[in-house]
Amino acid sequence: MQKLSEFKQHPGVLTFLPVLYTVWSDFIINEKEFRLLSETVKNQSWLSDSEKSILLDLVNPNSNIEPDELKAWLSFINNVPLNASKNLISLGIELSQSVHPNFKIQGSEIATLESLEQQLGIPEGEFRFIFHPELRKPLSSSHQTYASFDISRMTEILEGTDAATIKKTLAVITDPSFKYINTGDLNIHREAVLNWAKQLAGHGFGSMAYPKAYGGGNDLAAYFTIMETLSYHDLSLVVKFGVQFGLWGMSVFLLGTEKHHKKYLKDIGTLELPGCFAMTETGHGSNVRGIETTATYNHSNKTFTIHTPHDAAQKEYIGNAALHGRMATVFAKIIIQGKDYGVGAFIVPLRDLSGKLMPGVSIKDCGRKLGLNGVDNGVIRFNKVVIPAEEMLDRFASVNAAGNFESPISSDNRRFFTMLGALVGGRIGIPRSGLAATRSALTIAIRYGDERKQFGPESGSEVPILNYRTHQQRLIPKLATSYALHFALRYLTSRYIHRKEDEMQEIEGLAAGLKALATWHTTDTLQTCRECCGGKGYLWENRIGTLKNDADIYTTFEGDNTVLLQLLAKSRLSEFKQEFSNMKLTGLLDYIAGQAAVSITEMNPLIIRNTSEEHLLSAEFHLEAFTYRERDLLTSAAKRLRRLITEGMDSFDAFNVCQQHLVEVGRAYVEKIILREFLNAIEKVQDLGCKSILTRLCQVYALSKMDEHKGWYLEQGYMEGVKTKAIRKLLSQQCWEIRKEAVPLVDAFNIPDSLLFAPIAVKNPEV
Amino acid sequence: MQKLSEFKQHPGVLTFLPVLYTVWSDFIINEKEFRLLSETVKNQSWLSDSEKSILLDLVNPNSNIEPDELKAWLSFINNVPLNASKNLISLGIELSQSVHPNFKIQGSEIATLESLEQQLGIPEGEFRFIFHPELRKPLSSSHQTYASFDISRMTEILEGTDAATIKKTLAVITDPSFKYINTGDLNIHREAVLNWAKQLAGHGFGSMAYPKAYGGGNDLAAYFTIMETLSYHDLSLVVKFGVQFGLWGMSVFLLGTEKHHKKYLKDIGTLELPGCFAMTETGHGSNVRGIETTATYNHSNKTFTIHTPHDAAQKEYIGNAALHGRMATVFAKIIIQGKDYGVGAFIVPLRDLSGKLMPGVSIKDCGRKLGLNGVDNGVIRFNKVVIPAEEMLDRFASVNAAGNFESPISSDNRRFFTMLGALVGGRIGIPRSGLAATRSALTIAIRYGDERKQFGPESGSEVPILNYRTHQQRLIPKLATSYALHFALRYLTSRYIHRKEDEMQEIEGLAAGLKALATWHTTDTLQTCRECCGGKGYLWENRIGTLKNDADIYTTFEGDNTVLLQLLAKSRLSEFKQEFSNMKLTGLLDYIAGQAAVSITEMNPLIIRNTSEEHLLSAEFHLEAFTYRERDLLTSAAKRLRRLITEGMDSFDAFNVCQQHLVEVGRAYVEKIILREFLNAIEKVQDLGCKSILTRLCQVYALSKMDEHKGWYLEQGYMEGVKTKAIRKLLSQQCWEIRKEAVPLVDAFNIPDSLLFAPIAVKNPEV
Repeated sequence: MQKLSEFKQHPGVLTFLPVLYTVWSDFIINEKEFRLLSETVKNQSWLSDSEKSILLDLVNPNSNIEPDELKAWLSFINNVPLNASKNLISLGIELSQSVHPNFKIQGSEIATLESLEQQLGIPEGEFRFIFHPELRKPLSSSHQTYASFDISRMTEILEGTDAATIKKTLAVITDPSFKYINTGDLNIHREAVLNWAKQLAGHGFGSMAYPKAYGGGNDLAAYFTIMETLSYHDLSLVVKFGVQFGLWGMSVFLLGTEKHHKKYLKDIGTLELPGCFAMTETGHGSNVRGIETTATYNHSNKTFTIHTPHDAAQKEYIGNAALHGRMATVFAKIIIQGKDYGVGAFIVPLRDLSGKLMPGVSIKDCGRKLGLNGVDNGVIRFNKVVIPAEEMLDRFASVNAAGNFESPISSDNRRFFTMLGALVGGRIGIPRSGLAATRSALTIAIRYGDERKQFGPESGSEVPILNYRTHQQRLIPKLATSYALHFALRYLTSRYIHRKEDEMQEIEGLAAGLKALATWHTTDTLQTCRECCGGKGYLWENRIGTLKNDADIYTTFEGDNTVLLQLLAKSRLSEFKQEFSNMKLTGLLDYIAGQAAVSITEMNPLIIRNTSEEHLLSAEFHLEAFTYRERDLLTSAAKRLRRLITEGMDSFDAFNVCQQHLVEVGRAYVEKIILREFLNAIEKVQDLGCKSILTRLCQVYALSKMDEHKGWYLEQGYMEGVKTKAIRKLLSQQCWEIRKEAVPLVDAFNIPDSLLFAPIAVKNPEV
Repeated sequence: MQKLSEFKQHPGVLTFLPVLYTVWSDFIINEKEFRLLSETVKNQSWLSDSEKSILLDLVNPNSNIEPDELKAWLSFINNVPLNASKNLISLGIELSQSVHPNFKIQGSEIATLESLEQQLGIPEGEFRFIFHPELRKPLSSSHQTYASFDISRMTEILEGTDAATIKKTLAVITDPSFKYINTGDLNIHREAVLNWAKQLAGHGFGSMAYPKAYGGGNDLAAYFTIMETLSYHDLSLVVKFGVQFGLWGMSVFLLGTEKHHKKYLKDIGTLELPGCFAMTETGHGSNVRGIETTATYNHSNKTFTIHTPHDAAQKEYIGNAALHGRMATVFAKIIIQGKDYGVGAFIVPLRDLSGKLMPGVSIKDCGRKLGLNGVDNGVIRFNKVVIPAEEMLDRFASVNAAGNFESPISSDNRRFFTMLGALVGGRIGIPRSGLAATRSALTIAIRYGDERKQFGPESGSEVPILNYRTHQQRLIPKLATSYALHFALRYLTSRYIHRKEDEMQEIEGLAAGLKALATWHTTDTLQTCRECCGGKGYLWENRIGTLKNDADIYTTFEGDNTVLLQLLAKSRLSEFKQEFSNMKLTGLLDYIAGQAAVSITEMNPLIIRNTSEEHLLSAEFHLEAFTYRERDLLTSAAKRLRRLITEGMDSFDAFNVCQQHLVEVGRAYVEKIILREFLNAIEKVQDLGCKSILTRLCQVYALSKMDEHKGWYLEQGYMEGVKTKAIRKLLSQQCWEIRKEAVPLVDAFNIPDSLLFAPIAVKNPEV
């Protein structure tokens, strides 16, 4: 086979050289294409026989072009400027003419060659970059970080009235004594977490929500903010803190009465008296109303006997139980004179001051868990443990002097749910903690994505991975949702703090739903951030893995998410039932017809096909679409349940058949509230730069949810395919635009470097 | 307020008693409803004034009905048989008449009360169960486990020709010496894993794929099956095994030549010579072609100098490096006489026999990771380490006697991808390992879901959580997909083992795509199983958490999944390009028109709205729908790219704009292959019971994918809303039916109890 130095004298061969180089250097061109080339060569009447023979050798896939020879071709081709060439063949002709100035081929002959590039699948104009990659100036390479808004203003907007509490909390947990512990040893981790919790208590954080009379801060809002801010640190600490001061302390505070507050609250707030919240049993988690531990009243000595009748009635997963808890709020069935009065709560001692278990109490360590290994969860069993009757938490249920049961609430069920309602704060603390974890992970993943370069135009420089559309579409909607949820959870907190009795059903429903959506968002976001950081995301030092493991249980505790969304749906159906109950039957039909009429207006053909950017980005459209979805799912679920039951199906079965539908009812309701509260929050922002970028994040949130539910919108005929496609395209474009501001947007979370810790995300890592 | 003992004498009050009980005992009935009741009472002319006054007291939400009083109402009502009653009011009338036999009210008066139940939102007929919950016989309570097929026949079908290898492997790892280690201590875990790996090597498992001449089994199929079966155990062991015998050993085998085989393979197979596969660098993971470690040839002494020029060029995440590796296959840029010949591979010693690092080699431990903590990953840096030239793995690249570079492959790129292609086996081993992990987790979660009871009809007995539709819809499609992927991965393995040169592009693409989809399925399934097991799923002892952490990196290593799907898409586009290149331009147009014509036939209005069960369950429909999606996404991606580039966009940008589209091209292709191969496998099954249940699993797989992509099908007009809704409903129904066989279907995986280990899933747990 001839080498360049030999075939250089053949202008016909040189004409093909750029094509030959392209074919030999490209790793995806295959035998079929070699065959196409040899056919082409054979058909060229203007080539001499010796040229044909040389060329046929060169397009034989079994030929061995030496690597150095291929490099020689390239530098030879690169000597000829590209100016006049418009494809590989015209470049080849110039190449020939640079050596053989008189060489010419006819236009008709060229024509047969011109389709060659297309047939080889090389895009028009691409040939220039094969030889001169430095000519590329793709937009994707130059997409850089930039802030259109004042980052510290944004931080102020996010922190709002919580700023002072956040600052105070951060000051404590950025102290070197809070340095993360890199250990797989449960004892070391648990001990560290206990000591951290004690330090927090020393700053008055533990008793923040308790009345001032008991050493507290009387500031529930601050309590939630502390829990959220602590979540930039080890989540084991957050849960240990929440178990002690939230579950244990708040159960004493909210289910007990003054005598209990006086006796216990101060010591709980200082962590002098570590305790547990013993509700869940092995056999009853979600259906906690079915717990089987008994508290049997004995009027002769005014005591209750707390007893675990069998294994499934053991208290399981109880935080603080395996090592540190000295007492526990224990939920048990109240039995008086052989009658069952449903679930009540009792303060039961677990250990004495030396840490020894009390008689009749046995505790098993839950051992190693997927995460939260700094928390000492345990399984508790009571063997006829006798406690004084005054240790019954008696705000909602008590025994009178005559030894009879008393309660302001007649029904056992209703009393039980009132007690649970009093404890709904846990469903606010947990999603806020999970959301803070997403802020850490998004800060790490987005800063890394902005710095980490991989791939790029062929032989050009590499591009930050955050410049890739798939990477943007994995992270930016999650960032937008984290912003959206921030305002929704602040709204929920405020509603809860300023609650009135007749709002409780709504607030409990909202807390259940927001807890579910926010904690699933947490799981999804942490997973996405892990994957988006590749191998780096798998290392302990970069923290996403630990956050992921710790927060994983958030979807389960304080209520399994799937169960919570059904709870919300049932609450929504009962509100809906009221709308019906205030109407006569004809009114009902009018109502449904009215609903349909609304739909018909919204489903005007001009609207279902409207793909103008102005429309697709408008808050009116977003709110309408979210509201339509919420209302329609609710009405259709109600109608479907009614039909199934009317047809003779047992109501339990009917709810089961519609279960997925009900989950969607809950989801749609919460998504609408999140959108509405994001819009309300933006409305109040004065700073124009922040307002503008928040508006764009809100648009991304809305578009991403509509894209997620496009199947449903199309099924309903609420949108046509042109519109859902336009939404997808616009979403991609919005992510592309916001990408530039992604780093400033996570910078605005203002998480201190010592807490972020991850070497891939901070300037001067400590490892 | 009067008590029952007092108002018993008033028949009018007793008439309302069932309504009153219902209202007071139901925890979701609220003030509005109390108001409705008081209005109703006021309007009843047949009630005496004293009756009205008693009733108005009883429907005042501020009244305090004592809990014992409420219980007394219930037992009083329960004395009257329900027989004749058709609602709460007629029951009340009977109740009155049981005390006051002469009591009567007029039909017209009753009529005004009859709508009361409806207005209170109580479903018709429901009132019976309020007082007699034992009457409920909902279907959901009685849905029990049952096998319509022979479980051991199914195991045989799944294991096929691998049965003997599986049996042999299980015999080894069920030995008590393989008991799981419950530790967070890296040293203990790593040491245990090394010892296990040595035991496996002792059984000849390590060298299974190597030629017999070097002590091997010459059985690549068995090697893959061993790796898969080991995945029922600790995944750290699988990865340690894979690093040593797969990556290290196979790189020597496939990239080296006889001299290397003779020198190393035997000792690698026995684990006498532990080694590493040092490809990934800190700066280059996915874009591994860009690695920067150099191997500079020195002709004077026929050596290569291996060097790490800067931090980003360190070899990172290298398994076996931190502690045990004595040598490594190091990938580096070949530099000869100042010229760069692209990436080559070299055997480089890391430690001497005593474990001391070789001069110039420094290694940092990667430390604790999210999972796989039994594997000692490290970061390796080379400071001008000199090795003899014969340690270059020279199957694809070498230096000749004259000191010149030689290769059978001209282009550096093409040579690089040929090398990578030789190593594609890792993309088969990993998804098979991940899939085995899903089988463990599904066995645990499904057995638990069958046993764990929670909630049930009001006061009825509780129901296994697997009887709930949401629970079924979370687990059953994942079970079906695990079955589907099993056959697809066996198909891939067989294609790879019997590969011909011209099939390599297709096989590499398929391996990339199946690796991506199978490992994402693994992540999703393990997450779902964790959540479906609630708190139990969070405990170490139940293993799902550990599997989840260990397998999490599967989506990243052996190629990031998002990158792999794009790789596949580009390979698909290039196949497609061939279809174009064999046609003239008119042919091309004909081709596209032909595609459209196919669509038009399929999009016949009768078909896009066909909701008959026969059609929706038919394999023809499934294959057509999957194929349509695959072809349409591919053609539209090709057209879109061509248009963008023609409009002047840089091709790098154009691919970026279409990136998500390309990911979908890859996904659709693989999903079609999975369906096709599941159908092909079922075709071969003789046993009718197994064939039937496998067919149903295949239907669930197909329906669940179509449901997942319904937005796309609706956008395309390939289905109408009635059809996508019918698919959703049918999917729910199929899951409901298959739920009965879910336990037998996981039993067929035949995972030994000692490996499953989880106390929630095995009869005699060891913990």
